[in-house]
Amino acid sequence: MTVIALLQLDPTVGDIAGNVALVEAAAAKAAKAGADMAVASELVISGYPPRDMLMDATFVSACEMAAMGVSSSIPLLIGTPLSAEKSRQKPFNGAVRVADSRTAKIVGRKQLLPTYDVFDEGRYFQADDGPGIDRSLRGASVGITICEDAWQHIGEVPADYPADPIEQLATWQHQGEPLAITVNLSSSPYHLAKEGVRARLVRKAASTLGHPFLLCNQIGGNDDLLFDGRSIVGWPDGTVVQGPAWCSGILMVNIENPSAAQWIPLDSNGDDDLEIVGAGAEPTMPSKGQDLLSAVTLGLGDYCKKSGIGKIVLGMSGGIDSAVCAAIACQAVGASNVLGLAMPSRHSSDHSIEDAKATAEALGMELQILPINEIHESVDETLQGELDAGNPVAKENLQARIRGTLVMGAANARGAMAIATGNKSELAMGYCTLYGDMNGGYAPLGDLYKTEVYEVAHAINANAGGKSPITESTMTKAPSAELAPDQKDEDNLPPYTVLDPILEDWIERGIRNASPLTPEVLSRMHANEHKRWQLCPAPRVSNRAFGQGWRQPLASRR
Amino acid sequence: MTVIALLQLDPTVGDIAGNVALVEAAAAKAAKAGADMAVASELVISGYPPRDMLMDATFVSACEMAAMGVSSSIPLLIGTPLSAEKSRQKPFNGAVRVADSRTAKIVGRKQLLPTYDVFDEGRYFQADDGPGIDRSLRGASVGITICEDAWQHIGEVPADYPADPIEQLATWQHQGEPLAITVNLSSSPYHLAKEGVRARLVRKAASTLGHPFLLCNQIGGNDDLLFDGRSIVGWPDGTVVQGPAWCSGILMVNIENPSAAQWIPLDSNGDDDLEIVGAGAEPTMPSKGQDLLSAVTLGLGDYCKKSGIGKIVLGMSGGIDSAVCAAIACQAVGASNVLGLAMPSRHSSDHSIEDAKATAEALGMELQILPINEIHESVDETLQGELDAGNPVAKENLQARIRGTLVMGAANARGAMAIATGNKSELAMGYCTLYGDMNGGYAPLGDLYKTEVYEVAHAINANAGGKSPITESTMTKAPSAELAPDQKDEDNLPPYTVLDPILEDWIERGIRNASPLTPEVLSRMHANEHKRWQLCPAPRVSNRAFGQGWRQPLASRR
Repeated sequence: MTVIALLQLDPTVGDIAGNVALVEAAAAKAAKAGADMAVASELVISGYPPRDMLMDATFVSACEMAAMGVSSSIPLLIGTPLSAEKSRQKPFNGAVRVADSRTAKIVGRKQLLPTYDVFDEGRYFQADDGPGIDRSLRGASVGITICEDAWQHIGEVPADYPADPIEQLATWQHQGEPLAITVNLSSSPYHLAKEGVRARLVRKAASTLGHPFLLCNQIGGNDDLLFDGRSIVGWPDGTVVQGPAWCSGILMVNIENPSAAQWIPLDSNGDDDLEIVGAGAEPTMPSKGQDLLSAVTLGLGDYCKKSGIGKIVLGMSGGIDSAVCAAIACQAVGASNVLGLAMPSRHSSDHSIEDAKATAEALGMELQILPINEIHESVDETLQGELDAGNPVAKENLQARIRGTLVMGAANARGAMAIATGNKSELAMGYCTLYGDMNGGYAPLGDLYKTEVYEVAHAINANAGGKSPITESTMTKAPSAELAPDQKDEDNLPPYTVLDPILEDWIERGIRNASPLTPEVLSRMHANEHKRWQLCPAPRVSNRAFGQGWRQPLASRR
Repeated sequence: MTVIALLQLDPTVGDIAGNVALVEAAAAKAAKAGADMAVASELVISGYPPRDMLMDATFVSACEMAAMGVSSSIPLLIGTPLSAEKSRQKPFNGAVRVADSRTAKIVGRKQLLPTYDVFDEGRYFQADDGPGIDRSLRGASVGITICEDAWQHIGEVPADYPADPIEQLATWQHQGEPLAITVNLSSSPYHLAKEGVRARLVRKAASTLGHPFLLCNQIGGNDDLLFDGRSIVGWPDGTVVQGPAWCSGILMVNIENPSAAQWIPLDSNGDDDLEIVGAGAEPTMPSKGQDLLSAVTLGLGDYCKKSGIGKIVLGMSGGIDSAVCAAIACQAVGASNVLGLAMPSRHSSDHSIEDAKATAEALGMELQILPINEIHESVDETLQGELDAGNPVAKENLQARIRGTLVMGAANARGAMAIATGNKSELAMGYCTLYGDMNGGYAPLGDLYKTEVYEVAHAINANAGGKSPITESTMTKAPSAELAPDQKDEDNLPPYTVLDPILEDWIERGIRNASPLTPEVLSRMHANEHKRWQLCPAPRVSNRAFGQGWRQPLASRR
């Protein structure tokens, strides 16, 4: 019996000592539970993505030395940046093997460096030209690949690489190098419906190699990148074992017996059920709303934890976006650390305040009601000359900016972070106010279409048990910015059930034909590059989020 | 006699038809003036950088077809994206040769794809594996390189490439392929003091190749990237001819006789003197202040022109940053299209308004005075509970955010763009207010240290002829945010003459030792990632600007 432990952990970018401690504690637990070897995730020592920290050779060498110095009683594979081999070369993205009984050793260096979407590895790393190998597992050899190295094999890359490391390992086997298993150290970001693709990946690799293929993924949020965990193992017969999502733990894999796999939880979040799937079957998915809720909650929570932020302030309009954000914030930092501001204006409806109150009460968080009429009047008066003659949108935006000023004022006073409550549909259409409701250090819903926000709202209510945080009225009323009398989003935009699929085609799939958008709506979409540029981090849940992976020229004619 | 025309143009990203028209008009002018061949810059058909537009195969193929269809009576080399050769491959960054008498032809594809700093070419392009050649110049062959292809040869790249296209061309010559000249189609971004490096580049390449080396650069601003032009030619004996900076035109080069070079201006900006420099000598530079002024003025002007923005609004405090921004804005879009808002608070000094008035008057622009006391009081009152108990910085920020709201209100009403007036020293230290004075679609001084802003101010006054736009009082008073009674920047920061060299070490050179910064100052530097993330485009004039080329993780522990 050979048991491999996949250490599904949540490293913090730049916190070398903290990450080493995480890995050592998990490896010790795995050894105690009977593992013969442990595998951590890609760049677990530096955290992923370390971005320009990798341009600092002392940082890279500190990571490498820390990885080499990790203490483990069993052989342990650790992802870490590795110093360049010679001068005027970039560092490597590699794997180090440590074990008490052996000298620490570099056992693999990444060959395929993804440089697309959220990935920038060609910018920072030198590519190696062969897969890695380790021979510390009781005589049997272990093939080593790092994340992207395995993805060419199923063609799930936007452009082909010149090499396929899985085929290279298969060739080694044909040439007489016996491999018992191949591992993949991953930092594989989440997006909706990615699980099926990872199952296909480990199945195909296991089938080609004729032995189990073990993918260890990290969990956690690092700025806009989310990692869902779901470490996964495939056998040549198509069987798959998948660990749970959105939580730290150890997936103990008996390579001779898939159904003997075990999950050792390391925190109390999420679902602790590992899953065994037979050949041909697909891993089950939680509901989309539940999965998105877990995703953005961990994203916000990790952003706060890793940035040293303990308190959150947000504006609460009585609408669905701010109610959902409030619920997520309470989950992320605790209800006693969240302040909501309801800021009624002359255009606010009565139910707005009632709904905000009901949400705050159900969540057990503080709500302050700060009417903005008086400020609004003095701003109107000061700017009257401009406003009377100008574009009416200027007047509407004023209210959002006054509210943004109050939210930031309260956040600054309390040493808290403001969060922006807007969603991806709004942002795509420019149906939001820069320096107004877009204010905030993090936008929990910034990559969720409006229709997805409703799905998350249902999940929040389903989880609440008692009183629903999102009121029936919030759920069912027509979306409105309430910046003009009786204003409804549908006065300016198609209904979200029509708009969202079109936006998804445009943004995620690049499909721009046959769309029933009016020229006014189209020009809105084009006119909002500034907003996307100035957006704060938003947890990425889609194939194409605004932010890191979204690079459009601003000053251009299209 | 062989005359090569380098077409130094200002393309607009995405405007294929407009860029074709620019190239055709310049090539016709060059032909009429007696050129035997013309050379345009890198990606002149798509504009540089087209970023994610390159992921749209129909855009790439439209560029290629447009380039192939350019009409020219003389052989003309044009930089353009080229479609991928096979499926699942990225496009190429290439050069096409057209001439009335010949079939249009692909004559070169870039080999070295810079993927560092502001460059992301590894993300978008497939690298070729050999340099290009064209044989349309009356029997003589022309070696073709594209921008980065030439830079490995002088080692001015952060990490070595596996190939050196200049050496490859030299080898071809040894093997019997006679080359009369080698050209380099460039989109070589500006930063301070880059000119000397380009002279070294063309000299070294010419010396290795034994023939003239001609670098055609574009001019203009595309978002945060600036291109200074300064197209340049080197001869094997070390002689260099450099075209003027910051203007469109044609550098007519007699390859047998450097001193017969001519400059044909295509617009009225900038300096029309081309420069001939003997072996060993360096191109002369304008004063740093004048060069920076030209750089950021073109940056803002092009940003407005290419984005369809005709009017600018900015806050004017009477301080040096806003005065300099006002002067730049007037130059960029015309004084009649610029509105300044002076927004005195209870902490503003009398001279603030007087200085703002004097600047506006000297520039011939509109100034409105909008006191913010009343708004300030009603915001204070509304937020009193939070402010009384909270961090005093919250109170200071309120004023900046009220002003930001008024600036945006006026900009929205007029259909104008607000500009942010802050400088790089402030931004690095967080000595500015997010959603306050950082509001704006473009930050003309966002990459200038405070001490550089003074140099630009002197240049503005020197150019003004009559009344100096930047008053003596603005020049000499101690910098102050005026957000608290008698506040001075030096209360919180080292003097800028001390601070700026330290910042330059940290930011541009990565030197972080032996700096006399206090822990408070250091923690300020670390605490401002959010501001940098949310910064609008700022024209890049330094080795390392915040923005595109600056990639730091936000949620990290360092």
